[in-house]
Amino acid sequence: MPMVKMIDYAEAAPAVRAVYDDIMATRKIDWINNFWKVIAHHPPTLKRTWESVKEVMAPGVLDPLVKEMLYVAVSVTNGCGYCIASHTAGARKAGMTEAMFGELMAVVGMANETNRLANGFQVPIDPAFMD
Amino acid sequence: MPMVKMIDYAEAAPAVRAVYDDIMATRKIDWINNFWKVIAHHPPTLKRTWESVKEVMAPGVLDPLVKEMLYVAVSVTNGCGYCIASHTAGARKAGMTEAMFGELMAVVGMANETNRLANGFQVPIDPAFMD
Amino acid sequence: MPMVKMIDYAEAAPAVRAVYDDIMATRKIDWINNFWKVIAHHPPTLKRTWESVKEVMAPGVLDPLVKEMLYVAVSVTNGCGYCIASHTAGARKAGMTEAMFGELMAVVGMANETNRLANGFQVPIDPAFMD
Amino acid sequence: MPMVKMIDYAEAAPAVRAVYDDIMATRKIDWINNFWKVIAHHPPTLKRTWESVKEVMAPGVLDPLVKEMLYVAVSVTNGCGYCIASHTAGARKAGMTEAMFGELMAVVGMANETNRLANGFQVPIDPAFMD
Amino acid sequence: MPMVKMIDYAEAAPAVRAVYDDIMATRKIDWINNFWKVIAHHPPTLKRTWESVKEVMAPGVLDPLVKEMLYVAVSVTNGCGYCIASHTAGARKAGMTEAMFGELMAVVGMANETNRLANGFQVPIDPAFMD
Amino acid sequence: MPMVKMIDYAEAAPAVRAVYDDIMATRKIDWINNFWKVIAHHPPTLKRTWESVKEVMAPGVLDPLVKEMLYVAVSVTNGCGYCIASHTAGARKAGMTEAMFGELMAVVGMANETNRLANGFQVPIDPAFMD
Repeated sequence: MPMVKMIDYAEAAPAVRAVYDDIMATRKIDWINNFWKVIAHHPPTLKRTWESVKEVMAPGVLDPLVKEMLYVAVSVTNGCGYCIASHTAGARKAGMTEAMFGELMAVVGMANETNRLANGFQVPIDPAFMD
Repeated sequence: MPMVKMIDYAEAAPAVRAVYDDIMATRKIDWINNFWKVIAHHPPTLKRTWESVKEVMAPGVLDPLVKEMLYVAVSVTNGCGYCIASHTAGARKAGMTEAMFGELMAVVGMANETNRLANGFQVPIDPAFMD
Repeated sequence: MPMVKMIDYAEAAPAVRAVYDDIMATRKIDWINNFWKVIAHHPPTLKRTWESVKEVMAPGVLDPLVKEMLYVAVSVTNGCGYCIASHTAGARKAGMTEAMFGELMAVVGMANETNRLANGFQVPIDPAFMD
Repeated sequence: MPMVKMIDYAEAAPAVRAVYDDIMATRKIDWINNFWKVIAHHPPTLKRTWESVKEVMAPGVLDPLVKEMLYVAVSVTNGCGYCIASHTAGARKAGMTEAMFGELMAVVGMANETNRLANGFQVPIDPAFMD
Repeated sequence: MPMVKMIDYAEAAPAVRAVYDDIMATRKIDWINNFWKVIAHHPPTLKRTWESVKEVMAPGVLDPLVKEMLYVAVSVTNGCGYCIASHTAGARKAGMTEAMFGELMAVVGMANETNRLANGFQVPIDPAFMD
Repeated sequence: MPMVKMIDYAEAAPAVRAVYDDIMATRKIDWINNFWKVIAHHPPTLKRTWESVKEVMAPGVLDPLVKEMLYVAVSVTNGCGYCIASHTAGARKAGMTEAMFGELMAVVGMANETNRLANGFQVPIDPAFMD
């Protein structure tokens, strides 16, 4: 259950509605997912977060599918159920196949393992990596 | 300082040396980075970890550069200094430009932020993401 | 579902009941929340944890509302659903308004982002911060 | 050692210099700390991050000292050494005494402990916290 | 809800079925828990993960009960609900009593607290710990 | 560098000195490690933390070596360098051999990997684990 009431389009104040309109236009969809309807509770956070996400996730030197998979990798590492669900959906929409999802999970799992081996043994950084 | 003595090639037992040889052959390099020299302290962990990393990081439906960037994303999220250094080096070797590194960092930072907004507001998963 | 049976006041042993009584007296409430009823399964952990929480959360040079918001910040960062719910309730009871909750979330989200940018770029600490 | 070259004011491009100028003007200081000089490597990340931090950390319904302490609480939980150093310095500048720092650490430590007790026992959320 | 369809024994391909058979033979059980039925979606991950877990969790110089409790300690620290449930069940099967579970939780909670005190105060490592 | 000045025995106030004396007597050692000398900066945190650690780490139904290894498992998962160093030293003193350390690391690494696979695939808990 969310910590605050979700704000639907119909009841949204104009400033919130403007963000919702931009989300739908940018993503070419006709609905707003719960993340935005919840953080709309604090309009400056809604606006700033959306503008940041929009800029960061736009196609750049990395393509949108890679960006969505990076988002999933972070969300899985942090254990954020909502973000895993929403960004896996986003990655699939951007073209991630089931085999790609499998490899993504394999890399994320492995990285979490070797991160701890490096921590546990307190491995010193090789000079070659510091050039 | 590492928790255990690092094992150089010259002093390595045959089973450890066999793994070192495979690492250098697979990666087409002539040296062993500290991570392996430290976990060689426990030979079964060295062998199993190397074989797993070799399998997981091999080219598949995801290309090696994407895999290295996913590794960096996890390592940055966990704050593993050694892994950030070694996999950033790996990603650069696989073709990551400075602009790509910048976008990678931007996505990782943003994902860590929205993961916490989703946690903090306890956003319920949209039915559309559960199909 | 909890990992162990919760212990209600009526069935609690005297040592557990004494802690429950102190919780209700200290907080001026007439019920015990699930956290205590679950850890009561291990009475030394119940007693030690309660005494520590009581001491740490008592008014000091930081006021109780600030302490509750700090608790929420940690719980959101760790993704602990129970703790987010209980300490957000605690913060509201101590006077946190909806606007304050919004700013709290904004700071927690931002800190999680810049923590990863500092990790990812391995920013060296400025001498000025080490005085 | 940072992953990228730090960019000093003298060598900064105009867009980067504009952000540096705004940081110094906003904070009424005459130097730029390493965090910004490192992320300046990716100018859009520098600009977006600074504008977000500036907005989020501005005085609002929470005062600047409370915001700095929340930032420290998150940074300590995540183990980000740079952020602990810089935001503890920020909190002290905003008025945090040594006794306040001690209480802050006590709350952060305690929250991290009870977060894990709630996880480990899988405590169900009380209906009273869901109103 | 899982991100992918779970694969039951009856519908499993021969390679997946071979892993399921080995899991049941090794553990002397006649069913497969959901973890394996979900990751079976990506057969190389299923096979590699099972072979690694089988090797790591086999009796060695640490006994199986200690290994299960270590697994629980990590899972509680990371807040992984599935892993807490499955490895607490595993530890109980290996002989963990309720009193042992209570002490395990107490240690895990305490370690998470002092980890953050060490982070927050940035405690320098004693030379005596570096021998 | 620590965030605060470390307090040596010679300059410690009587309340701090009493805790130091108890640490040395309980552990049968003649020196105080940095953790305590740093948190002594906030005497109530020093006293409460020591009394909690002393109670939690005392021999109980789990032996001291197992408790030290659990502490290491948590510290490695969280990436706390100080705690890894101090509790690995503690575990060695309590009898941990190099082979045991190797198996400990292997379990911690593996658990961190499967925790993320369980997160990423959002594996539903088996009813058998909820009894």
